[in-house]
Amino acid sequence: MRIRLLISILFLSFTLEGKASEQVIRTPGHEPRIVVDSTSEWKGVLMAAGNLAEDFRRVCGTLPLIRTNPDASSHSIIIGTLGKSPSIRRVLDDEDIASLEGKREKYIIKATEDGKTVIAGSDKRGTTYGIYALSQMIGVSPWYWWADVPAASTLGKDTPIGNVTISIEKGIHSEGEPEVEYRGIFLNDEWPALTEWVKEKYGSYNHEFYLRVFELLLRLKGNFLWPAMWDAAFYDDDPLNSYYADMMGIIMGTSHHEPCARAQKEWHRYGSGPWDYQKNKAALDSFWAKGLERMAPTEDIVTVGMRGDGDEPMTEGENIALLEEIVRNQRELISKHTGRKVEEVPQVWALYKEVQAYYDKGMTVPSDVTLLFCDDNWGNCRWLPTKEDAARSGGCGMYYHFDYVGGPRCYRWINTIDTHKVKREMDKCLESGIRKIWIVNVGDLKPMEYPIQFFLDMAWDPEGIDVEKHARLFAEKTFGKAMGERIGNVLLRYGTLASRITPEMLYSDSYDAAGWTTVLKEWQNLDTESQKITDTLSQISLPWAEAYRQIVGFEIEAFRNLHRMYYSLFLGDQDGVDMYFQRDRDLMHYYNKILSGGKWNHMMDQPHIGYTSWQMPDKDIKPTVLQ
Amino acid sequence: MRIRLLISILFLSFTLEGKASEQVIRTPGHEPRIVVDSTSEWKGVLMAAGNLAEDFRRVCGTLPLIRTNPDASSHSIIIGTLGKSPSIRRVLDDEDIASLEGKREKYIIKATEDGKTVIAGSDKRGTTYGIYALSQMIGVSPWYWWADVPAASTLGKDTPIGNVTISIEKGIHSEGEPEVEYRGIFLNDEWPALTEWVKEKYGSYNHEFYLRVFELLLRLKGNFLWPAMWDAAFYDDDPLNSYYADMMGIIMGTSHHEPCARAQKEWHRYGSGPWDYQKNKAALDSFWAKGLERMAPTEDIVTVGMRGDGDEPMTEGENIALLEEIVRNQRELISKHTGRKVEEVPQVWALYKEVQAYYDKGMTVPSDVTLLFCDDNWGNCRWLPTKEDAARSGGCGMYYHFDYVGGPRCYRWINTIDTHKVKREMDKCLESGIRKIWIVNVGDLKPMEYPIQFFLDMAWDPEGIDVEKHARLFAEKTFGKAMGERIGNVLLRYGTLASRITPEMLYSDSYDAAGWTTVLKEWQNLDTESQKITDTLSQISLPWAEAYRQIVGFEIEAFRNLHRMYYSLFLGDQDGVDMYFQRDRDLMHYYNKILSGGKWNHMMDQPHIGYTSWQMPDKDIKPTVLQ
Repeated sequence: MRIRLLISILFLSFTLEGKASEQVIRTPGHEPRIVVDSTSEWKGVLMAAGNLAEDFRRVCGTLPLIRTNPDASSHSIIIGTLGKSPSIRRVLDDEDIASLEGKREKYIIKATEDGKTVIAGSDKRGTTYGIYALSQMIGVSPWYWWADVPAASTLGKDTPIGNVTISIEKGIHSEGEPEVEYRGIFLNDEWPALTEWVKEKYGSYNHEFYLRVFELLLRLKGNFLWPAMWDAAFYDDDPLNSYYADMMGIIMGTSHHEPCARAQKEWHRYGSGPWDYQKNKAALDSFWAKGLERMAPTEDIVTVGMRGDGDEPMTEGENIALLEEIVRNQRELISKHTGRKVEEVPQVWALYKEVQAYYDKGMTVPSDVTLLFCDDNWGNCRWLPTKEDAARSGGCGMYYHFDYVGGPRCYRWINTIDTHKVKREMDKCLESGIRKIWIVNVGDLKPMEYPIQFFLDMAWDPEGIDVEKHARLFAEKTFGKAMGERIGNVLLRYGTLASRITPEMLYSDSYDAAGWTTVLKEWQNLDTESQKITDTLSQISLPWAEAYRQIVGFEIEAFRNLHRMYYSLFLGDQDGVDMYFQRDRDLMHYYNKILSGGKWNHMMDQPHIGYTSWQMPDKDIKPTVLQ
Repeated sequence: MRIRLLISILFLSFTLEGKASEQVIRTPGHEPRIVVDSTSEWKGVLMAAGNLAEDFRRVCGTLPLIRTNPDASSHSIIIGTLGKSPSIRRVLDDEDIASLEGKREKYIIKATEDGKTVIAGSDKRGTTYGIYALSQMIGVSPWYWWADVPAASTLGKDTPIGNVTISIEKGIHSEGEPEVEYRGIFLNDEWPALTEWVKEKYGSYNHEFYLRVFELLLRLKGNFLWPAMWDAAFYDDDPLNSYYADMMGIIMGTSHHEPCARAQKEWHRYGSGPWDYQKNKAALDSFWAKGLERMAPTEDIVTVGMRGDGDEPMTEGENIALLEEIVRNQRELISKHTGRKVEEVPQVWALYKEVQAYYDKGMTVPSDVTLLFCDDNWGNCRWLPTKEDAARSGGCGMYYHFDYVGGPRCYRWINTIDTHKVKREMDKCLESGIRKIWIVNVGDLKPMEYPIQFFLDMAWDPEGIDVEKHARLFAEKTFGKAMGERIGNVLLRYGTLASRITPEMLYSDSYDAAGWTTVLKEWQNLDTESQKITDTLSQISLPWAEAYRQIVGFEIEAFRNLHRMYYSLFLGDQDGVDMYFQRDRDLMHYYNKILSGGKWNHMMDQPHIGYTSWQMPDKDIKPTVLQ
């Protein structure tokens, strides 16, 4: 039996032009050859091409050759960036070239009549996105590593993957240009889970870790990252962090309150005197200069402005005039230390908390600086740009939250995101002209897989997004056509139930008796369906079940269990509380130590039971029935 | 208890100037900080600095921070290359700077009075060698990965490694400049063992594999590599191979018979027409041009000249005048396609087999081209440069063999090298002025660990080499002071016994009865001692025993067993032959599947029993007693 991985199935969201006949990329024993110009091409594209070869191995069991020249006797996948690889023009016609020239981050995948597959990009990221689009077409999920999703070819469990035949529809495939210019995530609130995991697996927030993050972002067609910064400093922790980001095409920023491409932690490491511009200008200027020199050769975005140390408001004596002066001076430093005109260095100023009030009161922001609006930390836009704001040359951005440390209570343990709400809020952003930067706080990254996918897909093509269809298509691409609709529905249903009240705020008094009955029944139905899906996938193979549990199955089980614990508390049933609390321990142990052989150890270290204020408790504390 | 890793023990071969008091680098709970200038420093040095941090983790269990600035409160290890990191000058005095300026590949490690450790290099490789010298001082073997040698701190099995204190003697440590300019290895004759291992672990000869090779070479103070080429093409197989070589400071060559930085395999992939300069000049010129363009930005050495396809002599009609013309044209191409003056591009011409006869008959070689002399494939210099040869500006090199595919029989299975002989032959090279290139064919790389170490150490400092002391010091650095002398003696004894006759040539008629008795007794004594060492190391921990078996223990057992098999054949004892043949199977299985958890699977795939000509048999064939 031959499996045909029909691209059309996996490609519903893609534009398809040209003839509808198929072209074979790989047949058993007849491997494709990946052709890329090693001397002239972007090194980041070469890295992606290497990953494409690995992806073919995941799908077919054999590694394609990577070569600099095509070979008439092989299926060739010819990769190149316009303006970088001279040879790519030879396999494109004038129309193809015109469709790419001057475009931003665009690729075309062209299956030609003479049996070649061409991946051509308008720029470094365009080509990279094209490569990873082909990876997805052949059945490798962007989440293959971060959620251990097996290759689609392994769904046919009785067929050796070596027998896979891969075809692509002839014609030109493209996803056009992105709607939003900078599309990224923020690794934040990252201790204990992410940080302890990183320490165990990588030792520190070094480039080995970030290579994994960069690759994920590129596979998701993202381009922007705010790195971990609680006890980490991206540029400083490992000198190769920034090097590889730039090589691969990831644009870095420091977070909303870390000016001039320097982490706040670096001030604690190297700064002297107070974090106060009136009292310590010389030290701060020199501190910032170093950050700007360091980012000068990159595409990175410079944060401007200033908050108090530790992401707090500056002291009361400080005011709008001072902040304006700070930014004026920072912009002089930017120009001086990057050697570029200040308007040519992308800059962002976050209107976060009190800074928004300053802006409201008339604080001047240079028009080439991107104004970064922020949600209310709970995923609701609280304030949007005026037409004048949106028309500024720097445009506007949105800093959004899937995870938050702050009042009334942190939400950080598992995914509580309803994509309907994300769509509604981000649509508001679009309508008001926020198209320069979309960045979302994703906490520990796991288990936030689906909301991240949704956010970045929407940032690329907001018009094309339908919430329900997106979930089903994502599930179909990830788990195959047979299970797609069911898993998509589970994802949607989970979003609805999980977004009602965060796990950290849930308590025995969250519902009355009737409410508890209704809510528990809903969780029970969802969990029953989810267990059936897990069982079906287990029959294919354990890795499929484990991938499903990472994406949504585990969270359903864990969050339902938490409801049952608090309902026992509501009933005054201490035995029930004990049992479900223990079950919670067991589930966390499973995720940390058993799932994928312990690969994700510590990702479920986040305490989530026993909050008494906004701040998390030191550890989970079992509730006690009041006597 | 605190373990003190006294540098003096591990540092016998180093020059030591300055005061003899100690400076602490790390105490429990007080980690060192590695300081390196991320923006200006060579990226290869940054990679080595990251490896140094990992080495500290191997030794102490905790990962030091890497930072761009020193911190008064930490032990700082400040790393920089003169002329690259502006800040390194600030921690050196005039005398230090004078000792580095204009030097080649030199480092100093300076333990200053104020508690800093400075690693400064005269150039990219100098600094890198300094970093890895410190790694060795703290107890990380250059073979930590390639022979799974544990960190020295784990020898004290009752002490947690977190309790380790590391000190370095104050003053300046340096190994000066290397005697031989290009010091390298040739991965050759690489199928089945190395290639099957690479396929299983990496898929192909890609940069993931080569990163491991490059790192090993740098840890051994080597700088030059001829890559695998039987069915591989370094520059073409993975576009990142050459990129990382250049970044890390590895100078590449193509082998003795692959001109213009193009692998012979590339001709099979892309060439058209015959490999014949008289008939196919245009195609060959254009083929070579591409190789030269590709290597232009690197330090790589260009092979010139031409042999027949498949490393055979050219056809009879070809002659000296033609070869001279070929090289003349190649040099025009070199200058044209690298954009450098031809004398500024390092070139080598191998006087291999028939080419040596041409040279002997008066073939002209431009004086800036390095003349590469070759041994007789069996480790004996057959011909050495005259004074006039040695005085040429291009100097002379030696292509030496630890492994060979050819007559009368291949020797490729395990290490058969006597370092006494290597010393004697390479001393001859030195005396006749061969100091430009030393390159040695190392087969599959494993299990050739010790000869490789010896060859590269000798290339750096031939005057300082004493064969007996080297073995003991190597054993001491690798396995600790307590076992050093015993293991060193075993290494020497193994070299003596293993170099008598290769495993491939050994047969029942190799000795008469008295000879067999003597030889078997010698192997028995050696094996008995080796087993005792294995047992002692096992009592410390399994990894120590496994490292020892990789370095020498396994080979003693396997080669002794082969002697016993052929002696049984000599006696006409088929039962004995059967038993020892089966034991050979079991030993190969152990190395492939059990040792280090199967990490080295396929490294013992090399057939070694049943040769009937120079060429290896398809598989091992059990000898049969003649009836």
